[in-house]
Amino acid sequence: MAVHVIGTYHSKVGKLEESIYDLLVQAGQGALADARVQAADIDGVWIGNFSGGGFNSQEHLAPCAIDIHPDLRFKPVTRVENACASGSAAIAAAKQAIEAGDAELALVIGVEKMTNLDTAGVTKVLAMASHWPEEGELGMTFPGLFAEYAKGYMERHNISPEDLRTLLAKVTAKNHRNAVANPLAQMPWDCTYQDILDRPDKKNPVVAEPLRLFDCSLVSDGAAALILASEAKAEELGLAGIEIAALVHTTDYLALDKRSKSEFVAGKQAIQKAYELAQITVDDLDFAEVHDCFTIAEVLAYEALGLVPDGQGSRAIEEGLVEVGGKLPVNPSGGLKAKGHPVGATGVSMAVLATRQLQGQAIGHQVEGAKIGLTYNIGGSAASNYCLILKRN
Amino acid sequence: MAVHVIGTYHSKVGKLEESIYDLLVQAGQGALADARVQAADIDGVWIGNFSGGGFNSQEHLAPCAIDIHPDLRFKPVTRVENACASGSAAIAAAKQAIEAGDAELALVIGVEKMTNLDTAGVTKVLAMASHWPEEGELGMTFPGLFAEYAKGYMERHNISPEDLRTLLAKVTAKNHRNAVANPLAQMPWDCTYQDILDRPDKKNPVVAEPLRLFDCSLVSDGAAALILASEAKAEELGLAGIEIAALVHTTDYLALDKRSKSEFVAGKQAIQKAYELAQITVDDLDFAEVHDCFTIAEVLAYEALGLVPDGQGSRAIEEGLVEVGGKLPVNPSGGLKAKGHPVGATGVSMAVLATRQLQGQAIGHQVEGAKIGLTYNIGGSAASNYCLILKRN
Repeated sequence: MAVHVIGTYHSKVGKLEESIYDLLVQAGQGALADARVQAADIDGVWIGNFSGGGFNSQEHLAPCAIDIHPDLRFKPVTRVENACASGSAAIAAAKQAIEAGDAELALVIGVEKMTNLDTAGVTKVLAMASHWPEEGELGMTFPGLFAEYAKGYMERHNISPEDLRTLLAKVTAKNHRNAVANPLAQMPWDCTYQDILDRPDKKNPVVAEPLRLFDCSLVSDGAAALILASEAKAEELGLAGIEIAALVHTTDYLALDKRSKSEFVAGKQAIQKAYELAQITVDDLDFAEVHDCFTIAEVLAYEALGLVPDGQGSRAIEEGLVEVGGKLPVNPSGGLKAKGHPVGATGVSMAVLATRQLQGQAIGHQVEGAKIGLTYNIGGSAASNYCLILKRN
Repeated sequence: MAVHVIGTYHSKVGKLEESIYDLLVQAGQGALADARVQAADIDGVWIGNFSGGGFNSQEHLAPCAIDIHPDLRFKPVTRVENACASGSAAIAAAKQAIEAGDAELALVIGVEKMTNLDTAGVTKVLAMASHWPEEGELGMTFPGLFAEYAKGYMERHNISPEDLRTLLAKVTAKNHRNAVANPLAQMPWDCTYQDILDRPDKKNPVVAEPLRLFDCSLVSDGAAALILASEAKAEELGLAGIEIAALVHTTDYLALDKRSKSEFVAGKQAIQKAYELAQITVDDLDFAEVHDCFTIAEVLAYEALGLVPDGQGSRAIEEGLVEVGGKLPVNPSGGLKAKGHPVGATGVSMAVLATRQLQGQAIGHQVEGAKIGLTYNIGGSAASNYCLILKRN
């Protein structure tokens, strides 16, 4: 008995006027309205939020969900946190509550409000998602951690800095271009990879060698929400259609030094297990939304998906496989790079984008006839890994 | 098919030398050893932690669980946060994962390391569990919020400040006395309520009128852990015995101004619903561990439990009902007031204490022949409420 997605909401992404409370409430109300479900019928609410404490001085965000509708008062509301995968963690918890028989209808909200802080402040809060004593406290930042991946990848596969830079620029350009069709995206830009390479150093500085500014995803405010239903409830409401075929969560050591710097080891396991549960292969996927917090992460995701063998991530780009219209469009929404990355919201955002694709109501590029979509959402430097596969019946 | 508790661990509570990482690892290893379960057989880990970010600059604590044992690598590990009820929230999530069929064996750890910060720092971090814009940011602290309850209670029930002070001093003294038998407790003290009343103002100053220093629970480091098992797995292992008869979670508005200041409205609902699910009444309980973050909260808990009618909390104390040996011993461990209150660990701590009571291996006073125990754990000013009922078969 699969869990179904019967309603969605996605906010604009960017530097928004709304507070974290406003974003939470709008997202919840939007998803309820989309599913035409009454708040009174919701059995529980799960909130994915990375650091309301660090960004907004608000821990214990869960009870604020009652402001969505007074009929949510007294219901169980829970915040789940696994860094930038907090949104997927909230989906997983809600799905288990439904499968446990504790809920027929669940509201899942991912939300983050990051732009209150300046760049130094955001960098500090994000660094708390790394192993603090071994990484963040020593001055390691997330661009620094993903630069380690970029270097590990070049070294393992004998890739020159020039070739890597071109590859990453092509990922950047693809995602900015994809975002042009996405009315909610933070940074749409109709550009070519040559535009990225040609930017003067001042306008695309090195952030952490070899990663430059345009290899980094954005600092964003945003929220997204889903209504999940048991199969029986979805059918009763006449809203069955998009089902969770698999949701797999794997964990690796928090500190990057304890694991591979050239591949997402735990991510591969999550994806392969999800394929097994959904009884599909990568060839069955119609699109994927993956965690391009840095461009190198998208390249490693191509390989984790099994779209191309390890070390051949560039083929996915060079052969046009991951373009809209290609074999497996990756991040047709623009991804974290160009849609934006409100970190605790991102897992739910990906799931909403995937659902809308499967409903034929894509936010942005529609992959015609899409029946199976995948999201791959990571927390930290891929210590927390979630792979979600959604299917249209 | 009930979920069973088959292993427990409880750290010392107080100002400890161990880091948050050490506490987490010791707790996990301790519970595995107690249940004699292999890490490889654990299907998932859930961590209750309030503010690793605020206290320790460590969000994304979940992957650190792999340091408990390398065989936990790649398994799902999730952090759950609902303020001082984070521990109960983690138990609830793990229970649902088992009931969903996603896990047969789950490790649940509650952990908090608070004493790194000075009093002002702790007060600020804790205030993030209140509604920040309407409470914390305006200077409202948790002693202040519970002082509102104390004033609301006096006003509604026409209780004089002197009578309230005597009542609260009796709660304080009972819990310090109970802690004398608890080798893990932070502040055991064989005292009488007169000792509390007689303390000079300098040694028991007003923190937030009418609450004084000795009405407040402690700033603590500590961790506790449980192994949960499906009924089938518990029986297979020969460890069935203590089962979760009910675990109910209710939520109220985060800001106290939006709800009653003289009772725990949502808490009453959680407790009543738990009684229904467990098919018991208050008369069937052999003991309770309740959330005495401030002495007034314990009095309100007596009433939420239905032990005495609203406004008659003092009867529970005056008639000796809640003493060890009384009708319903409350906080035989010493409670948050004297055992200590490592906030994100507290829900798991209560569940461990209850399990050990039911096993006849109490940490502290043993209630002879105890068969049914209850825990009542709250987050914020009772916005998040969890009632757990455990039964010995």
